[in-house]
Amino acid sequence: MSDNTNETTAAAEYDFHPMWESLGMDVPAHDMLLGAVGQMFGDVFLAQENRPASTDYLNQVVAGIHSGRIKEMLDKKASGEAKKIVGSFCLYVPEEIVIAAGGIPVGLCSGADWATDKVEEHLPRATCPLIKSFAGFKLGSVCPYIESSDLVIGENTCDGKKKAYEFMATQVNMYTVDIPNVHNAQTLELWKGEVRKLAERVEQETGQKITAESLKAAIKLANDKRRALQRLSATRAADPAPISGLDSLLTVQAAFMDDAERLTGAINAMADECEQRAADGVGVAPKGAKRILYTGTPMAVPNWKLFNIIEKAGGVVVGEEACTGSRYYKDLVDESGETVDEMLDAIAERYFGINCAIFTPNDGRIEDIVRMARELNADGIIDCSLQFCTLYEMESFTVEKAAEQAGIPFMHITTDYANEDAGQLTTRIEAFLEML
Amino acid sequence: MSDNTNETTAAAEYDFHPMWESLGMDVPAHDMLLGAVGQMFGDVFLAQENRPASTDYLNQVVAGIHSGRIKEMLDKKASGEAKKIVGSFCLYVPEEIVIAAGGIPVGLCSGADWATDKVEEHLPRATCPLIKSFAGFKLGSVCPYIESSDLVIGENTCDGKKKAYEFMATQVNMYTVDIPNVHNAQTLELWKGEVRKLAERVEQETGQKITAESLKAAIKLANDKRRALQRLSATRAADPAPISGLDSLLTVQAAFMDDAERLTGAINAMADECEQRAADGVGVAPKGAKRILYTGTPMAVPNWKLFNIIEKAGGVVVGEEACTGSRYYKDLVDESGETVDEMLDAIAERYFGINCAIFTPNDGRIEDIVRMARELNADGIIDCSLQFCTLYEMESFTVEKAAEQAGIPFMHITTDYANEDAGQLTTRIEAFLEML
Repeated sequence: MSDNTNETTAAAEYDFHPMWESLGMDVPAHDMLLGAVGQMFGDVFLAQENRPASTDYLNQVVAGIHSGRIKEMLDKKASGEAKKIVGSFCLYVPEEIVIAAGGIPVGLCSGADWATDKVEEHLPRATCPLIKSFAGFKLGSVCPYIESSDLVIGENTCDGKKKAYEFMATQVNMYTVDIPNVHNAQTLELWKGEVRKLAERVEQETGQKITAESLKAAIKLANDKRRALQRLSATRAADPAPISGLDSLLTVQAAFMDDAERLTGAINAMADECEQRAADGVGVAPKGAKRILYTGTPMAVPNWKLFNIIEKAGGVVVGEEACTGSRYYKDLVDESGETVDEMLDAIAERYFGINCAIFTPNDGRIEDIVRMARELNADGIIDCSLQFCTLYEMESFTVEKAAEQAGIPFMHITTDYANEDAGQLTTRIEAFLEML
Repeated sequence: MSDNTNETTAAAEYDFHPMWESLGMDVPAHDMLLGAVGQMFGDVFLAQENRPASTDYLNQVVAGIHSGRIKEMLDKKASGEAKKIVGSFCLYVPEEIVIAAGGIPVGLCSGADWATDKVEEHLPRATCPLIKSFAGFKLGSVCPYIESSDLVIGENTCDGKKKAYEFMATQVNMYTVDIPNVHNAQTLELWKGEVRKLAERVEQETGQKITAESLKAAIKLANDKRRALQRLSATRAADPAPISGLDSLLTVQAAFMDDAERLTGAINAMADECEQRAADGVGVAPKGAKRILYTGTPMAVPNWKLFNIIEKAGGVVVGEEACTGSRYYKDLVDESGETVDEMLDAIAERYFGINCAIFTPNDGRIEDIVRMARELNADGIIDCSLQFCTLYEMESFTVEKAAEQAGIPFMHITTDYANEDAGQLTTRIEAFLEML
């Protein structure tokens, strides 16, 4: 913990420009991007009232997100402590495998529009903003995570990503994992095979064999992170909610980028504070503020638009049924395995349970939404899809039906990364909160 | 053959309204639909000059498409000659299995906008027109094929269909086959398992076991159809082209609906005539007319918009790399199998080779496009996606690159089932033809 504090505090003075240059980045463009994100972070996060003091960790993560953290990873690689940096875009890529093979797993940038003109030379205009974003960050050379990645792992989830990875494979060293469409015994076997093939591919990249010991440690490391996030999430059932949806979202966004051990410590500290706040009746929003369960497409940094609108309108997001939410932490990998084989199976089984909308049917997601809304005492559900996300757009009709049957008010939103619809969304969300 | 001729000729006098009513259809709305399709068929097909005489078969198919053919199928079911009618939306559903189990396989309506308001209560507005169409034909009760179907077989191809079938399963007796994302030894095994599960499900529906004898006959029946279509397709390499793209497209559209044996006879007669025309230098368009290879999303009846525009503009479509085209007939099922197991494997292997854009990568499609363009002496390639079809929209960039490398002029079009863009498309296509 102290390491990080020193490093990110020092970040303000350290000049990271030579590092970005050595990564082949477009440094002036990147400076502009960082300036915009910093400004946005101030307006959205630092403007919040009554934040738990322990959320200062999140401020530090964002402050060092493209600087101190990148340097830390590159330093670890230089010293031999880590072998390789392995990027990915999706929850379905098991971080345990990367860690056990000596790699550092990182989530890649995909939360803002960038280099759209260049992107549209390779991908259709009517592509979801998340996909356009990761292609744009690469084509515009402004994501230090992808530029530091020795290997990028894609996954065949939605049609858009599946095909966009064919293009990304022309830009980076890419390996794509295959994910099935349905849950059954045969597809689980297929997926177990994919997990093994991935392990081999990562080992080949890092040059380090996965051992029972390293895998057991990696499973524990990832599970500890999940346990910490579960603790924090549970405190949000309290009214008043001890922590905002924005800060909670940021904990998971941070989890894709920051060091696992440091993050776990920081999240546990937040959980400690939030448990205390809940016991003391201290909240980030007043008691009785309308409580929203978010469900839908993931939100990568700096996509804070919707949560900001909800919470500025007086609501408070108390849970996220999303990949940047409960799906990230709700299920642990079974820790009883002793051999590499047993543990790889346990990993495969855990990840197979992630309720991605690519699965048909996807009943587990629907059940989770209703369960979470009840457990977290949500007054309403806001289901949001990124524009052109066929899967979540389609599944929203099923979610709506389930919410209706459970008697929980529901609103569906389709949006993108631009700010053009912010006014309209504010009006709709204010009306929804009023109605609750 | 004579049976059909009598029946469809008689269709004009026979009153099919009681039949449609007994199927629970919206008869006045359906009358309107049939009127519109009949009018369109006249304007598009009958207005063509120099058609091969043997295309009169196609006129008869369209004349009886919702009437005589439906009655024929229902009569066969009533007499016990056929057990069940089994509908599907995709090339990936092996007709051999349906036939061998005593069923009649039919393609379901999906080529025109219908009941869009009702559809948008269940599916997103930004859904591809083909999916909206099949949902609309069901919700509007105007497709006698789906209303006659005892079982509808879906397939997990694109995100849109995969999720739309969850809704369709609330409307019809539905079974969905799972299709993989990638081609490898493991996914082929999975697919072979899916083919077996499908065979069991169809047997259960029809109450008739698939035998080595019935399966062998069904394989031969379907292969004969494919061989006939291959023969016809080969004649289109001639300049002048002996048959129009419109009529050729209609042969495959008809193949989804008409009796296989009758269709095979009629297509062979067309191939005979077109071989003669090619030898005699007789064409449907003048020698030297610009020759187009079509590639892209499938075109269900009555989606004749693009081909009509191309051919009215003086071009001639000489091939279709599409599900309503070469993918339907280019590969045969191996006929050497003797046991049910061997034959099911041969069926699985043949269907696994269909170059659907759901596969990543989909190199087979790209190779086919270039090969077909050369074999059929195409002057240019028109690649077309239905709006919101992520897969074909994305793959169009790869197709364009391949066309460029092969030195073949290329144009990409995104369109839907409405006529609003007909003027604009005409202008673009005329300019493209002029440039060739």
